[in-house]
Amino acid sequence: MPTKMHSCSDSPVKTYQFRICYEDTDAGGIVYHAKYLGIAERARTESIRQLGGSVAELYRTHGLILVVRKMEIQYRQPLFLDDVVNVKTCLISVLKASCWLSQIFTKANERVTEIKLQLVCLKKRNYVPSPFPDNWKKIFAALSETQTS
Amino acid sequence: MPTKMHSCSDSPVKTYQFRICYEDTDAGGIVYHAKYLGIAERARTESIRQLGGSVAELYRTHGLILVVRKMEIQYRQPLFLDDVVNVKTCLISVLKASCWLSQIFTKANERVTEIKLQLVCLKKRNYVPSPFPDNWKKIFAALSETQTS
Amino acid sequence: MPTKMHSCSDSPVKTYQFRICYEDTDAGGIVYHAKYLGIAERARTESIRQLGGSVAELYRTHGLILVVRKMEIQYRQPLFLDDVVNVKTCLISVLKASCWLSQIFTKANERVTEIKLQLVCLKKRNYVPSPFPDNWKKIFAALSETQTS
Amino acid sequence: MPTKMHSCSDSPVKTYQFRICYEDTDAGGIVYHAKYLGIAERARTESIRQLGGSVAELYRTHGLILVVRKMEIQYRQPLFLDDVVNVKTCLISVLKASCWLSQIFTKANERVTEIKLQLVCLKKRNYVPSPFPDNWKKIFAALSETQTS
Repeated sequence: MPTKMHSCSDSPVKTYQFRICYEDTDAGGIVYHAKYLGIAERARTESIRQLGGSVAELYRTHGLILVVRKMEIQYRQPLFLDDVVNVKTCLISVLKASCWLSQIFTKANERVTEIKLQLVCLKKRNYVPSPFPDNWKKIFAALSETQTS
Repeated sequence: MPTKMHSCSDSPVKTYQFRICYEDTDAGGIVYHAKYLGIAERARTESIRQLGGSVAELYRTHGLILVVRKMEIQYRQPLFLDDVVNVKTCLISVLKASCWLSQIFTKANERVTEIKLQLVCLKKRNYVPSPFPDNWKKIFAALSETQTS
Repeated sequence: MPTKMHSCSDSPVKTYQFRICYEDTDAGGIVYHAKYLGIAERARTESIRQLGGSVAELYRTHGLILVVRKMEIQYRQPLFLDDVVNVKTCLISVLKASCWLSQIFTKANERVTEIKLQLVCLKKRNYVPSPFPDNWKKIFAALSETQTS
Repeated sequence: MPTKMHSCSDSPVKTYQFRICYEDTDAGGIVYHAKYLGIAERARTESIRQLGGSVAELYRTHGLILVVRKMEIQYRQPLFLDDVVNVKTCLISVLKASCWLSQIFTKANERVTEIKLQLVCLKKRNYVPSPFPDNWKKIFAALSETQTS
């Protein structure tokens, strides 16, 4: 598992904005810890879409799905009702059928949550790993650090 | 849409018990209104299972899924963290490929929420209505009022 | 309960756009029925915010929360991964401490889901109904049919 | 962060059983990765309750809430509709106001998912760490490895 937390660059394509609603919160008055994972999925899906990739096309054209195999989360500051959070998605590393992403949540430029996760590309039919389609290479290149700095 | 709220009988097969956790609550300090729908799904699935029906078998053997087409909910009293809620599931009416269910939530024998919903049986392949399997007739009979009184 | 389904006007302030992600779907391949309620909350919260009202301000300044007391949903067409849905929020009627809203989900201008719900304004301290703040009057006026036509 | 995955003992108090419903799955046909976190919350809450601790009592009597500060998850095998999963909760280590737990998900005795997480006890009023109540010492002792072997 990659050990270093990356500092994503600030390209708009990598940044997703989300507003906290009651649905995201719990009786502690803050965002429930599991809800960050759904927000992170929206953020990376949107960044990938802006670079030309879509999970629906992945499934309908190629019979492929993306699943999370490993994940590390660090919650630094709570989030509250009506907060606006920005999520930046960066590529850490990529192999044929899997990749590691870093997703940083910020509120008013303060880092509130950090996620590192490994996505694996699987055939929906039998849940066996399968290489990303060729056109995803340029998506990963655009999501990597060096590409955007 | 059926208009009368049914008073389900108290057979154990129709009753499902659920404990409220942080996941179910929101920043208002009470259970989030959408979470009742997930709890209701668990309740009716479990009641149907105890009568010999399973949604996994419906899908794997018959290629069928159950979807909600219409729903009416009345929230009478809030539910709080750690509350224990009982959900009773009763059949209101059934046709070849659809049925109406009543689901009553109680806490300490007080009625807190009432749901009436129409379930439709669809072919997963094309989302077209398809009759329930034959063995579901006895399940619906057992879920109906008169059967259990 | 109001019986007529309203046809909301198309003012941008009343319309909210949402993209379907894996988080919203279930093993039937479509959006899980309870997830519409969360999307509807986002839609009405955003419409209200654009008109000058915020649930966070409601809570922090006035100690008030909004809860759903009654709801009716009709699911006409399923929604799938990556679909873009528009949600229009209109006021049906309003009293001192409660209101009825209509929320219409459309996909490519086709009506897919309709929700009518009654919101009640409660004191967070004791969950007793309490009038909406004065500045919400103009919000409700702007959300009503006649105001925007 | 603790590095070794613990193998929890099989005392019933530490084990929680959960049935997968449509609500837990996504369009990939398997349990959505974020849903494991909610199931894990139910599992540890129930284990703690059986040992005499309750999150509602923690809040109402002491004004305290439990929040997740760090989490590591490894997804080994997917879970499907209707699967029955067992979750075992064990203590790895405990300090005055925080603890590390291990939660192992098994299906038919096969390990499917592993979670390690750090819980912190906070004052709800200001989200500042605060020691666990005295009676939680025996709960943590009972949740630890050595106590139950």
